[in-house]
Amino acid sequence: MMRTPHTNETIRTLLRHRSVRAFSDEPLPAGVEATLREAMRRGPTSSALQTYTFVFVHDRTIRAHIRPWAGDQSWVEECPLLIVACSDQRRIENVTTARSYSYRASDLRILVSSVEDLTIAMHNASLAAQSLGLGTVMIGGVSNGAREIHELLGLPPRVVPLLGLCVGVPAESQRDLEARPRLPAELVFHDDRYALTAEREAELLAEHDRAVVERGYYHGRRIGWDAIHDGPVGEDPVPDEAYGWTEHVARKQSRTWWTRFGPKILHDLEAIGLRLRADDEEPRHEATKSERSTT
Amino acid sequence: MMRTPHTNETIRTLLRHRSVRAFSDEPLPAGVEATLREAMRRGPTSSALQTYTFVFVHDRTIRAHIRPWAGDQSWVEECPLLIVACSDQRRIENVTTARSYSYRASDLRILVSSVEDLTIAMHNASLAAQSLGLGTVMIGGVSNGAREIHELLGLPPRVVPLLGLCVGVPAESQRDLEARPRLPAELVFHDDRYALTAEREAELLAEHDRAVVERGYYHGRRIGWDAIHDGPVGEDPVPDEAYGWTEHVARKQSRTWWTRFGPKILHDLEAIGLRLRADDEEPRHEATKSERSTT
Repeated sequence: MMRTPHTNETIRTLLRHRSVRAFSDEPLPAGVEATLREAMRRGPTSSALQTYTFVFVHDRTIRAHIRPWAGDQSWVEECPLLIVACSDQRRIENVTTARSYSYRASDLRILVSSVEDLTIAMHNASLAAQSLGLGTVMIGGVSNGAREIHELLGLPPRVVPLLGLCVGVPAESQRDLEARPRLPAELVFHDDRYALTAEREAELLAEHDRAVVERGYYHGRRIGWDAIHDGPVGEDPVPDEAYGWTEHVARKQSRTWWTRFGPKILHDLEAIGLRLRADDEEPRHEATKSERSTT
Repeated sequence: MMRTPHTNETIRTLLRHRSVRAFSDEPLPAGVEATLREAMRRGPTSSALQTYTFVFVHDRTIRAHIRPWAGDQSWVEECPLLIVACSDQRRIENVTTARSYSYRASDLRILVSSVEDLTIAMHNASLAAQSLGLGTVMIGGVSNGAREIHELLGLPPRVVPLLGLCVGVPAESQRDLEARPRLPAELVFHDDRYALTAEREAELLAEHDRAVVERGYYHGRRIGWDAIHDGPVGEDPVPDEAYGWTEHVARKQSRTWWTRFGPKILHDLEAIGLRLRADDEEPRHEATKSERSTT
């Protein structure tokens, strides 16, 4: 493990982080869920708004239905517990209108702080679980199926599933995982003002590509040449020696998958009742209106 | 501190969390920043995209300029270190176009996972600092001044400041802070499917209001009656006994402040080069185009 000038058990937990993507059949030990929930609640939240709602999905059938909408990752179905974190703008709006005030807040602004709040809670759950020897993996792909997962979990309007966390006992194959490579610190950290030149940035990216290729990190993890083309394509022209972080990222961001799933998120968020365009003065959905009148 | 079925040093750090809003003049001990940076890098990131850039603001003059754009909180200026976390969609787009692939990703979709990634990193820094006896507070208000802080820090297009973290030695007054109240767990956690009725929700909110009022939590923290009205207003009609969490949230979300700052975030994000509307096919800003050609 990387060494730092200061250390203690908490810092060791942070540095030891690995995502675990295969779980044994064992259930979670008794009391773990209560521990995770308390750790989740104690995270800081923006203005104490607590704009989140969490669904603990124990039922494997529900997880099997969520799976294709969350990147079709087998561990979503196979882990003993999937926590689905939802950005919840419903509760604070209902509370506001129930007290006869006008709701003036921006859904986009609250979406940002809500994603921060729910992420802190989920990461607290992940760290608490890891500190107890359990394995976890975040499922960002939940946001690709926001609308479908919203329906599967019976969520009310303006409660948007955006992030998942699988928790379980790691499978044998997941012991002693290597740490994932990270970009050179000089690319990511700046002092006082941003001062990275394009030349230096290109150098650092090339250095990172070399390190990743040397380690063979993308062997068996490549994004196929077909994923970035519509229709039949020839052979992938990029040899393993040229397939580093930049090639992987470029392919990821260029996948034809985006043609469908890029626009989907805005439509999903709007369908669930968020108002994200500048000209959205009023809720767009009947469901949201009736929902507001029930509290 | 709340007790949980399982515990260890990491879980105690999570449960002990308090935000600290006053700092001594002492500088951070040597090596702390290196420790925080390593903890930040080790957090999980969506698809290893690492869509973040962090600026460590040591220069008090810069922090004094940021302060009015981040909620005018004195600790932004007075802490020895402010970390500003930026959602960085520039790096991954540049890498994609530099390798001659089309950039097809949705900025809104990546914004969500980017906020998750940068929040995990910032929370790791916060937890590492707290575990070393330092104090921290998250500054969500940075997103209110995204455009101005972007300029103050000399950030490139598509690198959007959204979250801050103050780190320092806690002032005497900040020792032994009480934990902030939290919504009842039953409101926030659900099993398998959402099943909270409107009646039960109203009961739980009323219970929380009573608990908060009994504790006197909002004494001296009330949002003024004038903040939710344009022009002169009469006396605040709500007595302290009726000012609980729901009243506070309702006022927060109803402040006239939103009239200006609600629409600002969408304009700021677009000015910095994000494409958030469904009909945004092409970058809207010349700066973004020239930026793309430099890498």
